[in-house]
Amino acid sequence: MTGGIRRRMGVEERREQLIAVALELFGHRSPQDVSIDEIAEAAGISRPLVYHYFPGKQSLYEAAVRRAAQELAARFKEPHEGPLGARLLRVMERFFDFVDDHGPGFSALMRGGPAVNSGSTGAIIEEVRQAAYEEILRHLEITRATPRVELLVRSWVSHAETTALLWLDGRRVPRAELERQLVHEFAAMAAVAAAYDEQVAELLRNIFATEPVDSPFAELVTRLATLLPLPAP
Amino acid sequence: MTGGIRRRMGVEERREQLIAVALELFGHRSPQDVSIDEIAEAAGISRPLVYHYFPGKQSLYEAAVRRAAQELAARFKEPHEGPLGARLLRVMERFFDFVDDHGPGFSALMRGGPAVNSGSTGAIIEEVRQAAYEEILRHLEITRATPRVELLVRSWVSHAETTALLWLDGRRVPRAELERQLVHEFAAMAAVAAAYDEQVAELLRNIFATEPVDSPFAELVTRLATLLPLPAP
Repeated sequence: MTGGIRRRMGVEERREQLIAVALELFGHRSPQDVSIDEIAEAAGISRPLVYHYFPGKQSLYEAAVRRAAQELAARFKEPHEGPLGARLLRVMERFFDFVDDHGPGFSALMRGGPAVNSGSTGAIIEEVRQAAYEEILRHLEITRATPRVELLVRSWVSHAETTALLWLDGRRVPRAELERQLVHEFAAMAAVAAAYDEQVAELLRNIFATEPVDSPFAELVTRLATLLPLPAP
Repeated sequence: MTGGIRRRMGVEERREQLIAVALELFGHRSPQDVSIDEIAEAAGISRPLVYHYFPGKQSLYEAAVRRAAQELAARFKEPHEGPLGARLLRVMERFFDFVDDHGPGFSALMRGGPAVNSGSTGAIIEEVRQAAYEEILRHLEITRATPRVELLVRSWVSHAETTALLWLDGRRVPRAELERQLVHEFAAMAAVAAAYDEQVAELLRNIFATEPVDSPFAELVTRLATLLPLPAP
């Protein structure tokens, strides 16, 4: 990169570039292990110039987390068309794409290492969880969730996070299987909760009524039938 | 409490007392909101004397977390006798007892507020999770877990944590139902994972082979049969 190009970059453009460079580095190594010097070098500018745009590593880190959060929230968006199982599966595929791209940064953030995390990153994580929760409720066409529906959806969102984190630790299970498994688990957890809550039971009946025979949900039911010693209906 | 009694307390005894007092206070309000002055007052000693035993609030907090972790790990211990569903249910009951007793302290710790948490509390939480993981493997009589069994058990442990945290936020669902639901969810998550892993499938067959008809697992299967449009076996 030439000095001429460097001079032409505006403040916002330069900040965006530094955020992109930081996110790229955090996708390969933990943020704790990435120095401002490396970020400066990768961006092709001097260390003092980095501090001109971000007062410290923490503020650059927080800006990177905010950017990653926006990117993740955008991946939750899924057209409200077709069977729910297939929609959830597409969202899970995009979620694992994100986790795959941001591996070490995602792990460090979610495992909450004190060297990198602060109240402000914690608040950003909560916002993403809330966005995921609300998006799923819209897909379920629920405007007023009962406490059990809320628990079901929030705990499944958290379960998807945990599964992704455990997957990152060694990647010993094919991610495509985990994406499908998470969709199956949503149905399974709903089936468990349905025993206690009419809204969940109705939800489940509606979901199954509209699932085609080759959907992830239908597949789950067929599998359960071979595994569980179910009484004849 | 009289000065005479105060003088007779040894260092360890006094430290134990302060930890107990702190845990009691953290069971009613978030650790961030509890001052050293309040802890001193509840213990019947002066503020400077608290600092004699603990150099700061953070060190007293960490000692309290360590104590609570020991207490929680002890509650995981369950005789290796009888059907698995009933064993898991008893452990869940004791887990919710713990969460009930330590409400605000548990929430603050697990939500990872930076004002109270450090790398050392994070490490303690990981130790408790590991203890829970190992204890469950022993109940399942598994010495070498496949990656999927590990994922199943660790993600269920995490799911129990999340469920307890969500429950604490308003306590809008009866805890006894959640204890049972978590046991059902273990079986449901195992049933989902069984499609991908022979160890999980074998585990599930063994579990169901030894469950009595009135067990939580058998109850789940009966419920699923009425909810899911299962093909005839």
